[in-house]
Amino acid sequence: LTRSERTVARIAVDLLGGDGAPAVVVDGALHALHLDPTLRLLLVGPQRALDQVAGHHRVDRLETGANGGAIAGGAVRAAVRAVRDGLADAVVSAGPTASSVAAAVSGFGRLPGVSRPPLAALIPAAGGPVILLDVGACPDVDADDLVSHAALGARHAAAMLHPDRHPDGGGPPDGPRVGLLSIGTERGKGDRLRREAADLLAATALPAGARYVGTVEGHHVALGGRAEVVVTDGFTGNVLLKGLEGAAGLAGPARAAGPPDTAAPRAAVLLGVGGVFVVCHEAATATDLASGIVLAQHAFPPQQQPLTGADTPVRTPGGVRP
Amino acid sequence: LTRSERTVARIAVDLLGGDGAPAVVVDGALHALHLDPTLRLLLVGPQRALDQVAGHHRVDRLETGANGGAIAGGAVRAAVRAVRDGLADAVVSAGPTASSVAAAVSGFGRLPGVSRPPLAALIPAAGGPVILLDVGACPDVDADDLVSHAALGARHAAAMLHPDRHPDGGGPPDGPRVGLLSIGTERGKGDRLRREAADLLAATALPAGARYVGTVEGHHVALGGRAEVVVTDGFTGNVLLKGLEGAAGLAGPARAAGPPDTAAPRAAVLLGVGGVFVVCHEAATATDLASGIVLAQHAFPPQQQPLTGADTPVRTPGGVRP
Repeated sequence: LTRSERTVARIAVDLLGGDGAPAVVVDGALHALHLDPTLRLLLVGPQRALDQVAGHHRVDRLETGANGGAIAGGAVRAAVRAVRDGLADAVVSAGPTASSVAAAVSGFGRLPGVSRPPLAALIPAAGGPVILLDVGACPDVDADDLVSHAALGARHAAAMLHPDRHPDGGGPPDGPRVGLLSIGTERGKGDRLRREAADLLAATALPAGARYVGTVEGHHVALGGRAEVVVTDGFTGNVLLKGLEGAAGLAGPARAAGPPDTAAPRAAVLLGVGGVFVVCHEAATATDLASGIVLAQHAFPPQQQPLTGADTPVRTPGGVRP
Repeated sequence: LTRSERTVARIAVDLLGGDGAPAVVVDGALHALHLDPTLRLLLVGPQRALDQVAGHHRVDRLETGANGGAIAGGAVRAAVRAVRDGLADAVVSAGPTASSVAAAVSGFGRLPGVSRPPLAALIPAAGGPVILLDVGACPDVDADDLVSHAALGARHAAAMLHPDRHPDGGGPPDGPRVGLLSIGTERGKGDRLRREAADLLAATALPAGARYVGTVEGHHVALGGRAEVVVTDGFTGNVLLKGLEGAAGLAGPARAAGPPDTAAPRAAVLLGVGGVFVVCHEAATATDLASGIVLAQHAFPPQQQPLTGADTPVRTPGGVRP
């Protein structure tokens, strides 16, 4: 059975990921179960942590063995295997991003044409939602990576946002608008990487009916309305995301406790791998973990079509469009 | 007479800089004069623009000639010359950043040890003010540039912020705290540039009693309290600044008209050159221009001590501190 035929999402949760693990992860899992009666969880970790959720009828448990806690990333790798083996539909982890990406890549594999899988965050801006990627998986990228990320972001946006149904009617009828994050909207602005990527993107056919709308700036991400997908390197994306979270009072000690804001998940989806993997902050609270689990419930399984093919992205022959 | 002996600041304003020039610049200049009875302006531009402010007793006028408007950056270069010739204390321009930096470098010269002069913005965060640099002058930098920018930012913060007098008492008694913007606070996080710069900064003696406090993240810039000076490349800094402005409702069409917010100037100071130069957004409103003029009034003339010397930064012998 595929996910859509089953309707009930089963999420594998890494009990050992994050600064507050396992206690905070257990709290987050129980919080998520309380929010959604259709949710099923597969908690993955050592026996002692699993005992805290024994007997919950919507929780399956996967013990990682006596040494599961001692091996860094042991639980997240077991969670990825569980999805591959059909025991769950998606993984949620608040472990270190590098370990999570490594576990996802080795367990799920990269999609064809993807060299560095990016993390995509959803920013609920006033002018419309913005999917920002990469937000930390790939601090060092080249222009080809940014083109590949634009294609992955376009597919993700088409599945998650349905931009043709935006209430403001500002979006195009046929697919998401994709922008390249830069420091000016005129041609020739930006650093070397952005100038090269802007030329490549202008010459690339994007999937999912998406179109490249040129460079966008930091305030366009904060305010929304200019593009549904904004592409950048993982260094800049992470800095901007955390800056916006800070400005919104979502980060740091000032953050208020409360129900998870499912419209502004404090979690990101790893794109470009052959399975659904949601990464939470390492400093995630129980509320953050719950919002990550909700996000994983609603993420769509990756399309296995190659990025370079009839689908996208195809460089136009003869080089770059003027 | 030096600036401090004169008490009245005389600001040279580029009438031709910015998308709305000259009308918006004239409005901004009149706005600034209305706010501060001690201000004197030297408006620099072609005759037609100067006629709009004829007869104001606190305005001097410098005509750039019949062709002043036709030569790109002609007025800003004349404004820089006016400061060099002692006719004004500082320049304000909303022209293209690249032209402004070029005019300042060729007219004022770089300070010793400075290869790429950075733009420093002041962010009035709740936890304390943050000077963020570079915010757009140098999109492509190397680790040595970031060290030089840290030293320039330290001097600027010591002059502008007096961190020893912070009301919260959280600052060090002896000088500003300097952080390197990155995507995690553990050693080894970040991209290649940040890993190299973090090692260099840990081994560098900063001027003005400043100390390097390690890496900081995007939310530390938004919230303040971790460092008075945050150093980054001009690409990331520009994206973050515009993102925070967008989140605060300061950017884009939603921005409210009103008096200039002198606590949050929509302008940045160019450091590392031999004169005071304030850069406004090209899309600056009259209010933004006025806040830039107020900022220039309160900027301190650059210190001419070399960055590499008894003052700073000095690499410790034997390489990098562990």
